Amino acid sequence: MHERFILDEWKIIETSFAPKSAHFSESIFTLGNSHMGLRGFFEEEYSGDSLQGTYLAGIYYPDKTRVGWWKNGYPEFFAKIINSPNWAGVNLMLDGEKIDLAISSFKNFRRELDMKQGKLTRSFTLLSNDGKETDLVITRFLSMAEPNLACITVKATPLNHNSILTVTPYLDGDVKNKDANYGEKFWQEVNKKIDTESALLSVRTKKTNFLVSSAMSVKVLIDSVPQNPEKKLLLKHKYVGYEIKIPLTIGKPVELQKFVAVCTSRDFEEHTLEQTTLSKLQTAYQQGYEALYRNHLAELTRRWEDTDIIIKGDLKAQQGMRYCIFQLNQSYDGKDPRLNIGPKGFSGEKYGGVTYWDTEALCLPFYLYTNEQIAKNLLLYRYYHLPQAQENASKLGLKGALYPMVTIDGQECHNEWEITFEEIHRNAAIAHAIYNYTNYTGDRSYLYDYGLEVLIAISRFWADRVTFNPRKNKYMILGVTGPNEYENNVNNNWYTNTMAAWTLDYTLKSLAELKNDDQVKYRYLAEKLDFEPEELDNWQDIIGKMYYPTVPDLGIFEQNDLYMDKEQVLVKDLPPEELPLNKYWSWDRILRSCFIKQADVIQAFYFLPEQFDLECKQRNFDFYEPRTVHESSLSPSIHSIVASHIGYHHQAYQLFLRSSRLDLENRNDDTDEGIHLTSMAGNWLAVVMGFAGVAVKNNNFTFNPYLPETWESYSFKLNFRKRRLKITVDKEQIKIEQFSGTLFPLYVREKEYLSSKDNLLSIKMVE
Amino acid sequence: MHERFILDEWKIIETSFAPKSAHFSESIFTLGNSHMGLRGFFEEEYSGDSLQGTYLAGIYYPDKTRVGWWKNGYPEFFAKIINSPNWAGVNLMLDGEKIDLAISSFKNFRRELDMKQGKLTRSFTLLSNDGKETDLVITRFLSMAEPNLACITVKATPLNHNSILTVTPYLDGDVKNKDANYGEKFWQEVNKKIDTESALLSVRTKKTNFLVSSAMSVKVLIDSVPQNPEKKLLLKHKYVGYEIKIPLTIGKPVELQKFVAVCTSRDFEEHTLEQTTLSKLQTAYQQGYEALYRNHLAELTRRWEDTDIIIKGDLKAQQGMRYCIFQLNQSYDGKDPRLNIGPKGFSGEKYGGVTYWDTEALCLPFYLYTNEQIAKNLLLYRYYHLPQAQENASKLGLKGALYPMVTIDGQECHNEWEITFEEIHRNAAIAHAIYNYTNYTGDRSYLYDYGLEVLIAISRFWADRVTFNPRKNKYMILGVTGPNEYENNVNNNWYTNTMAAWTLDYTLKSLAELKNDDQVKYRYLAEKLDFEPEELDNWQDIIGKMYYPTVPDLGIFEQNDLYMDKEQVLVKDLPPEELPLNKYWSWDRILRSCFIKQADVIQAFYFLPEQFDLECKQRNFDFYEPRTVHESSLSPSIHSIVASHIGYHHQAYQLFLRSSRLDLENRNDDTDEGIHLTSMAGNWLAVVMGFAGVAVKNNNFTFNPYLPETWESYSFKLNFRKRRLKITVDKEQIKIEQFSGTLFPLYVREKEYLSSKDNLLSIKMVE
Repeated sequence: MHERFILDEWKIIETSFAPKSAHFSESIFTLGNSHMGLRGFFEEEYSGDSLQGTYLAGIYYPDKTRVGWWKNGYPEFFAKIINSPNWAGVNLMLDGEKIDLAISSFKNFRRELDMKQGKLTRSFTLLSNDGKETDLVITRFLSMAEPNLACITVKATPLNHNSILTVTPYLDGDVKNKDANYGEKFWQEVNKKIDTESALLSVRTKKTNFLVSSAMSVKVLIDSVPQNPEKKLLLKHKYVGYEIKIPLTIGKPVELQKFVAVCTSRDFEEHTLEQTTLSKLQTAYQQGYEALYRNHLAELTRRWEDTDIIIKGDLKAQQGMRYCIFQLNQSYDGKDPRLNIGPKGFSGEKYGGVTYWDTEALCLPFYLYTNEQIAKNLLLYRYYHLPQAQENASKLGLKGALYPMVTIDGQECHNEWEITFEEIHRNAAIAHAIYNYTNYTGDRSYLYDYGLEVLIAISRFWADRVTFNPRKNKYMILGVTGPNEYENNVNNNWYTNTMAAWTLDYTLKSLAELKNDDQVKYRYLAEKLDFEPEELDNWQDIIGKMYYPTVPDLGIFEQNDLYMDKEQVLVKDLPPEELPLNKYWSWDRILRSCFIKQADVIQAFYFLPEQFDLECKQRNFDFYEPRTVHESSLSPSIHSIVASHIGYHHQAYQLFLRSSRLDLENRNDDTDEGIHLTSMAGNWLAVVMGFAGVAVKNNNFTFNPYLPETWESYSFKLNFRKRRLKITVDKEQIKIEQFSGTLFPLYVREKEYLSSKDNLLSIKMVE
Repeated sequence: MHERFILDEWKIIETSFAPKSAHFSESIFTLGNSHMGLRGFFEEEYSGDSLQGTYLAGIYYPDKTRVGWWKNGYPEFFAKIINSPNWAGVNLMLDGEKIDLAISSFKNFRRELDMKQGKLTRSFTLLSNDGKETDLVITRFLSMAEPNLACITVKATPLNHNSILTVTPYLDGDVKNKDANYGEKFWQEVNKKIDTESALLSVRTKKTNFLVSSAMSVKVLIDSVPQNPEKKLLLKHKYVGYEIKIPLTIGKPVELQKFVAVCTSRDFEEHTLEQTTLSKLQTAYQQGYEALYRNHLAELTRRWEDTDIIIKGDLKAQQGMRYCIFQLNQSYDGKDPRLNIGPKGFSGEKYGGVTYWDTEALCLPFYLYTNEQIAKNLLLYRYYHLPQAQENASKLGLKGALYPMVTIDGQECHNEWEITFEEIHRNAAIAHAIYNYTNYTGDRSYLYDYGLEVLIAISRFWADRVTFNPRKNKYMILGVTGPNEYENNVNNNWYTNTMAAWTLDYTLKSLAELKNDDQVKYRYLAEKLDFEPEELDNWQDIIGKMYYPTVPDLGIFEQNDLYMDKEQVLVKDLPPEELPLNKYWSWDRILRSCFIKQADVIQAFYFLPEQFDLECKQRNFDFYEPRTVHESSLSPSIHSIVASHIGYHHQAYQLFLRSSRLDLENRNDDTDEGIHLTSMAGNWLAVVMGFAGVAVKNNNFTFNPYLPETWESYSFKLNFRKRRLKITVDKEQIKIEQFSGTLFPLYVREKEYLSSKDNLLSIKMVE
């Protein structure tokens, strides 16, 4: 567990540079603006170990699948978000000597991410061999207001010398993915142009043919006075740059400002792309750094307004929570329905940067509470991918639709049979998201216009995927991997069976409601999708005869058939040096153990909180939580929410704290590969759905809040059916402020209130 | 199903060339001599699709493992037998026009493998564009007597023209493996020498540093008269060759004889390797073709003497059986205890050409009956690999030894978790081989000197790998893949549990016998291996409380837990166009189906025939055989043997026929990748152990023969405890001839006989 960073409510600060943790820090200091992003690698050359990663939303490459042993049904390609041209680079030399923190001497190293400002600042004092000392401050931000723009500044102050600083700002398209399956480079040069005003580089991806133009212009200031220094123009394959020699005078700061514009053919006309890019660059350059930064900050502030959770009395929790919100806000803005939320955001290559069921499990609810339109866009994303999901099912010889485990364009990418073919519960999360949206917003139009098509396709998959077992007169789901990926190819994963039956039931009920609400639309749908009453009867039969494994003597659900045959050991009895298991145990040992990677039975309590009674949830939580190692980042926040729901407040808080600081403390020892973006949404939910107990039950907005022991208060905003609310919970009271929309009844601890006239409702914590 | 080949008792003949089946025919026409071998690719250039493969026993390369997703415990390398320098090449041109059967016109194509002579002959009449007709006959053999030598002949007879034939015999080291994980070439040039007498090429493998020298000399004869034509010397990277222009005169045959010697640093001193190679070549050249061929034939005839099965009245069976025996004899001679039997012999790259449990399951018994020393060498092979097997177990966090699924040097190569970590039943086959050898030979010295160490290590593995289930008071083996690889990660595979308990029991009994026979040796072993009575008591406890899944209402063993929850369908109800399933079904569908790839429950009846009563075996066979698709080549012969044992003679014959002609008829649609060598031993056993019912029971040699319906007779030879026997079974009688050794009692159909004085015992078939 790392404690690299100073506790601060708005900042992530490290005060030393640890080459061994370089990847980890690079991940943490990732910056982005929904359109583009990059890891916290250094601007200047660094010859030590580093994972340079610069990413553009939606710019991907179908990398030919790599497997050891092919199985029928595997996809041919793994579409991955790729490392894009590096626009951040600025090489530095002092009196001809390269500045390279792997080699150079330096002191006072400090790196600071200001989350309120969306800016990364790095500073150090360079100690040259001949005794020269130079202060360097390097900053970067990516404009939240104008997503094609970014700005880098390098400021050097010679403390005890006059000398020459050589700065080499550049754009470099000769990059590759560390995880390229066959070591291939994905970019080809298309064009480059350079003069003293600006430099431009256009490159194109192979196969997908995305055209990307990057351009830069630079300003040099000495003691805040603009200069016009000579620039040597550098042109190499897939590379443009300037070499600028700047005289340094003792005590006088010198600053380089690098303005960057990056545009892609995803967003702009290809034939005018370079022009567009240069024109954006020029405007930014003319506006100047301050104006650019001001606009950026204004937009970021607006996002904080919408999503911040203010925690008083617990700096660790506050910092962790804000880090999560910051990463969510800077990685995805939900405006482009072709995009989704990759598990690593802009912080790394792992998982290909593409869409998993994380979206429906955790991110969608976050947007439901904060920005309904984004939630709807995420639903539409899956609707548009329905044909590919149908093709995916048919590849396996099954009816209906099987949504991919991993995708960027709707096609399956993943290629482990136990996941690709068997982790089919993902389908249920997509069905549940439709329910979740409809239930929370009260808006049935998505359900009727789009959602039912998805639900029916998924239901058809379930109905074909079950096996009727005449010996037991039950429907079973054989050969699956549940959410707990530390068991594979099991029979009757309780969660999967539960969610499959739930999907069939929700689909039938929704169809019945549509039939009632809108006969015409119902008939249209019945004709379009060609369903007959017999099919619906069959679904009803499956719901009625679904098999659910249980452990009768313990009064719990059995995670899957035969789970109880495993040796039953608890996580607390594991030697700490063997955790995380996925690092220290063989896969064989993990599979045969009872240890659970992530919420599995408990996941159903999160999705379907009203379907199980309190004692049942408690018994299962008591059994499964001590066996759960939470080696999926998706897990602890789910357990935290359920712990809140069943009154296990201390555990809920502990799980929340672990989860909210998962990356800052590198809890799963894998943040070097990138942060865990999608799970970050879960921490927001752990406060809102967990601590505050926000839910919509029977169409009513309900709260069941409590205050974690060590906290003084917490507050957050949310939207509910065209109303904007702010909720504050402290030791004395629950305050509900309504900013907009009509007054409405709401339930706090199962008691009805009406949001009051003066838009402030205050309820005592202890009544 | 292919019927490409003419039925013949000694030959495999094709009378047309089918480019689409080129790989298939190349596999079938593989030649070898235990030291080296090659697929039946053409000597002259062929621009069509071909899998050129030339292999040298034991010459391997540790190819870096390729996986999609790494799992802890996977091996870093897959050691594979690699494609070696091509010494067979002879390019041909007629009047400057290349002869290439992908482009040239030709008629009367014929390819003939004479199994009695160990020689491959290919002939065709070339039709040139300008009307020239030329008969070509190309032969090859690899000397069974002198395994470093081979000879190619090319004979050309111009039917209607005088012209110039250009022949280019060469040695080419610039070859690669089609299945190289990273497209790498494994060979580096070391040296090449050429003059008009001989050409030599020395190449070395990367990493493993095997040095291989190949050398060739050529003779040219016109109308059987030796010539001394001019040779143009060709030298290229990793290549040496001669270009020879020979004048053709109408009606006069011209012949090229290419003598080849190939030696490796595995067998000879490296610093004199080239000299050794050249000297072997020179001797062969001086002896001449006829003498070389005579010696080869003498040795091959000797092997046929030892191993042939003569079947009268069933040409299909005779041809199939002889093809199996031929491939076994030419691929492995058992003289080098560092070598083992790869599943494809010299016929392809698939499976890496290395050691699987096939050896113990099928090959070892074949050698037990025909050449005891080879069987012992195969046991020693595993004994020498014990340290690596122990390391392999400890990598998984387990005690004792886990023999690898695939190996060449004792280290695991395979990298699918469901096989590598879970198909642990392979350990039991290795234990059983020790029992089998000891039981058949009556010689306990291997058991006491070596075998017990292996048995104890394997027993320790089982004792650690079981899970005690206190809820059921049973020991279970969780997370395994049984012999049926169409189910993965199952619990309590009945076969595995049975064989694990059997291993523990056999180990305990063998220890008790050793203690009784040789106290000193026992104490030595107990000290060396550090075993205490408590450990042995624990094994006894596991044997007593082992859990065996059963289906009580059907009176059968359950293949593994939950097998009966699958939809129960029979193979006969599958549409034929969906077979083999592994080609036409998604892996997901295969896994969830009840279809069984290969003998699983039935495999135990083969290994432990006396442990189960007849009715029990029949019930299980009746249940499992109709669900078995036999998509492993190991399977049908095992089922055939068990069918014989339980009196299902018609099925036994059908299964035998399928199995013995598996490759000739391309039954599993995969012979293009190579033949199924190891399974070929099973067909020999299907006759000897199955039809003839040979076994050693209670230390007695027993027969229980029958004659398959359509057969007139069959006969074979075998060795039993220093006696050489010939058994002939026809419609009237069972004849047992004894050629050597003392007379002994034997049991035919449970009745005791004594081998008679005149060394011929005749027993009426119908008594």
